[in-house]
Amino acid sequence: MAARPVGEPDDSVFELVETDLPELAEGQVLLRTVYLSLDPYMRGRMSDAKSYAAPWQVGDVMQGATVCEVVESRSERRAPGDLVLAYTGWQTHAVVDARHMRSIDPAAAPISTAVGVLGMPGFTAYAGLLQIGRPQPGETVVVAAATGPVGSAVGQVAKVKGARAVGIAGGEEKCRALTEELGFDAAVDHRSPTFREDLAAATPDGIDVYFENVGGPVFEAVARRLNKFARIPVCGLVANYNATSAPEGPDRLPGFMNKVLTLSLTVRGFIQDEFVAEHEADFQREMAAWVADGSVRYREHVARGLENAPEAFRGMLSGRNFGKTLVQVGDDPTQA
Amino acid sequence: MAARPVGEPDDSVFELVETDLPELAEGQVLLRTVYLSLDPYMRGRMSDAKSYAAPWQVGDVMQGATVCEVVESRSERRAPGDLVLAYTGWQTHAVVDARHMRSIDPAAAPISTAVGVLGMPGFTAYAGLLQIGRPQPGETVVVAAATGPVGSAVGQVAKVKGARAVGIAGGEEKCRALTEELGFDAAVDHRSPTFREDLAAATPDGIDVYFENVGGPVFEAVARRLNKFARIPVCGLVANYNATSAPEGPDRLPGFMNKVLTLSLTVRGFIQDEFVAEHEADFQREMAAWVADGSVRYREHVARGLENAPEAFRGMLSGRNFGKTLVQVGDDPTQA
Repeated sequence: MAARPVGEPDDSVFELVETDLPELAEGQVLLRTVYLSLDPYMRGRMSDAKSYAAPWQVGDVMQGATVCEVVESRSERRAPGDLVLAYTGWQTHAVVDARHMRSIDPAAAPISTAVGVLGMPGFTAYAGLLQIGRPQPGETVVVAAATGPVGSAVGQVAKVKGARAVGIAGGEEKCRALTEELGFDAAVDHRSPTFREDLAAATPDGIDVYFENVGGPVFEAVARRLNKFARIPVCGLVANYNATSAPEGPDRLPGFMNKVLTLSLTVRGFIQDEFVAEHEADFQREMAAWVADGSVRYREHVARGLENAPEAFRGMLSGRNFGKTLVQVGDDPTQA
Repeated sequence: MAARPVGEPDDSVFELVETDLPELAEGQVLLRTVYLSLDPYMRGRMSDAKSYAAPWQVGDVMQGATVCEVVESRSERRAPGDLVLAYTGWQTHAVVDARHMRSIDPAAAPISTAVGVLGMPGFTAYAGLLQIGRPQPGETVVVAAATGPVGSAVGQVAKVKGARAVGIAGGEEKCRALTEELGFDAAVDHRSPTFREDLAAATPDGIDVYFENVGGPVFEAVARRLNKFARIPVCGLVANYNATSAPEGPDRLPGFMNKVLTLSLTVRGFIQDEFVAEHEADFQREMAAWVADGSVRYREHVARGLENAPEAFRGMLSGRNFGKTLVQVGDDPTQA
């Protein structure tokens, strides 16, 4: 990260730098990055606004979860050829402590899913929907950014639980994929001039759970359809991440709080971390089974080459990508 | 109600009308109003905006909870002289079905408490604080309108549960009463030019529970002090009740939602009704004991005469009153 972005992070805030790798110390391994995960939270960390985690510093390597192959090892824990989930960020190689990674079983699922449907985004959907949203059979669950890695899992897990799943996405192609490919009951295009009416038509019984991962104008339309006692897990606000100041008025906060009051709404922000200790094992078991039996499907947007990470990152933030955004930094040894 | 109010309800929206009482039918009783309860929710019902209950209609008698004495009875359920909690509204007498009332035991506590600390306001505090706020020993609970019937119970019940109670009120006299009379750990005057700094000083460990019953600028100052995982039960927004349109910008909603996200806040609107079935019996038992042993104290603002109800109502909405606002409509037979 060469500079803090103002608004959308253009090329000037990134710099591609080559450095020599250090010698391996005892207990360390050399990792080769296969896939780099790009996630919305990264935009937040690039700013120095107060958040749930400390901001990154200018000059640091951009952080991020990675799927890596062990190339060299000076630890008994890992051997060359091992595939691991690590947090080595936007780089082709890294020398790290062998304890700071988790094994990936390439026989269980494509290794890229370790940062997708079977990784943090999938767990965010699973924990937020089931622990906060608590959808009941027959209730209506609405999620925006519905073709993204979190949103697509939210809708499909809602279906598994017997709820009606309505996805909001940008553009006809994405909407068609939601109903035809991902099994949503209905899809609504937020770019349509009739978005508000379309959402009403897609939610004839109102909305019981709105999984909030975008913010912005979509939320306003959703708010009009909320039922009494609706639950709103809030896990992301991509629409606000590039904002540089409070938008112009009118001030919608009092109206929103009135709605919270009159509808007895539950609005609950969360980061998936808080649920890991109690629910991660259940997640791995249940989600792997749902992926295996086709209940939960996923799509990936894979950019090739580390040099294309900034453009892929912007595409994810602006909704141009479909599914989980990854950068393939090196060869995938499972795809011979 | 002679007209729907726009903004503060002035005298023109009320009309004092005399009518003949109907004959008692079988099963009915004639009630004489002793105390009329004035509550913030009434302002909401006078508007025709969508809310959790249908709006009142122009020409209707203003509704409200009352403490009444039975004057005549054509029911075996009630005898003349019985004291009851009813919902007969802003009138001196009413003929109603004998099933639509609850007994009040005048030996247990002053009968006016049936619409105060041992009635709906006390239960609102009890249920919202304990079921949503869930204060833990050592945590900090902040409540605004802290000398009101809900706020004063919130702070004192928080103390019973081992939390630090900080009250926000308007004016030195109210603030002094909070710490000297009601046992709050600290009180902050929201009219002070140093309100924000005072609140920070009174909450050195941040805020874990904010019981929201006012809305408006107080909330903004509180939001800066919220701790991670803070809970915000929302039971009233008096500051907004007289508002006629969305206030001017900037739009604070995105910033608020960012805070919900980054602090993993729980914001939960509620009306006390939803907790009655499960928690009312516990409330009656526990709160009566706390009142009896002095753990929970209360104050009343009693206006005399039904003709003074509109002014007392405005005083309550604007924070001029201290404690539970009542109108004594007729003689209290327990005060000889």
